[in-house]
Amino acid sequence: MKIRAVLFDAYGTLLDVSSIGETAERLFPGQGVTLVRLWRDKQLQYSWLRTLSRNYADFWQVTADALDYAAAALGLSPDPAEQGELMVAWERLAPFPDASPALATLVSRGMPLAVLSNGTPAMLAAAIGHAGLGDRFAALLSVDAVAQYKTAPAAYQLAVEHFGAAPGELLLVSSNGWDAAGATAFGLQTFWVNRSGAPVERVGVTPTASGTSLLDLPVWLEARNGAAGG
Amino acid sequence: MKIRAVLFDAYGTLLDVSSIGETAERLFPGQGVTLVRLWRDKQLQYSWLRTLSRNYADFWQVTADALDYAAAALGLSPDPAEQGELMVAWERLAPFPDASPALATLVSRGMPLAVLSNGTPAMLAAAIGHAGLGDRFAALLSVDAVAQYKTAPAAYQLAVEHFGAAPGELLLVSSNGWDAAGATAFGLQTFWVNRSGAPVERVGVTPTASGTSLLDLPVWLEARNGAAGG
Repeated sequence: MKIRAVLFDAYGTLLDVSSIGETAERLFPGQGVTLVRLWRDKQLQYSWLRTLSRNYADFWQVTADALDYAAAALGLSPDPAEQGELMVAWERLAPFPDASPALATLVSRGMPLAVLSNGTPAMLAAAIGHAGLGDRFAALLSVDAVAQYKTAPAAYQLAVEHFGAAPGELLLVSSNGWDAAGATAFGLQTFWVNRSGAPVERVGVTPTASGTSLLDLPVWLEARNGAAGG
Repeated sequence: MKIRAVLFDAYGTLLDVSSIGETAERLFPGQGVTLVRLWRDKQLQYSWLRTLSRNYADFWQVTADALDYAAAALGLSPDPAEQGELMVAWERLAPFPDASPALATLVSRGMPLAVLSNGTPAMLAAAIGHAGLGDRFAALLSVDAVAQYKTAPAAYQLAVEHFGAAPGELLLVSSNGWDAAGATAFGLQTFWVNRSGAPVERVGVTPTASGTSLLDLPVWLEARNGAAGG
């Protein structure tokens, strides 16, 4: 089926979460990178658990909660100013270097693009704007509208409703293997950007395609839509 | 509200998952402990993601899938015999030393006890039996009956239906902070056995009580039910 719009995950896909490590290392020398890794793990875990428990809080809150846990687990006590500095880093993430050229190529072909993310609308507007990617996207879709995080079907359904397309006419691009798997299970086409050479997630589905960089995406997409005809 | 029955989580609460490390270290010297830690993390992650994605597979399958991922991530290639040995270790987990005496005290008081676990009925029967705890429990309740893993409400609802009690009349005992939180959000009373001094999970709810050993449970429960009257 021909792909009519492309959805991008934000954190870890367009935006490099590990870029927070610089701020964290400055505040907590020798522990910043570990802090950010644990923080990210807990942020995702809380997003899943709250969705399962029907106990939604928005991603800013979940992110603050996860920082609070991660710092406590490492015996760190960031003061309010340090917490604020770490939190605001989510709005100033560095884009991956392959993001801007890959998006530019797709835009030049007239492909409609959107972000589909767990982030709140405010977090997404700030981070995508700060990364200089704001004018690439027709929409920044936040799961906050349905109060359920990925991989809940309602999160992916947002994109189906926004574009008025069949799930199989939409492509979700994510570097998060679990997101690519969840979107595949939902029925979207999926492109997994596996920058780190990670094993594929074993959850009973396989992404439609994968690559090692966002630059692999336009190449694959052209072949795919050419093969699909008209 | 007086507690009328007590539910125990199995893996990590009654049974020591880290006891698999011995088998794993024998098969993969120097990497076994890391393998088991990653295996357990992925097992839980897959249970959450499959429930969110409505893509259930039973816990034996999820456990095998998680092993497959964890081994690949560490560059290990267990052959089928080694895989089998690692899998069967889930049915031969060592009980924590505090489990048997704590259960015996509660049984001697006439408190109805059950297991409420993600494990399949076959996995639970084997592991609880092997640990010598089989005669303590009125029932081994497996979420397999509802094809949704904790912390989905349906998983905890199983216990409500089994005992025909109000959620607040049941106590869930778990060493897994996320399980204690999920059961609390559902409406059960909860006792978190925090053996490792971990921070409490920041997901918007707090367990009813906590202790550092299962031996703290009978003490707390006696006070609680005494205070609650008759």
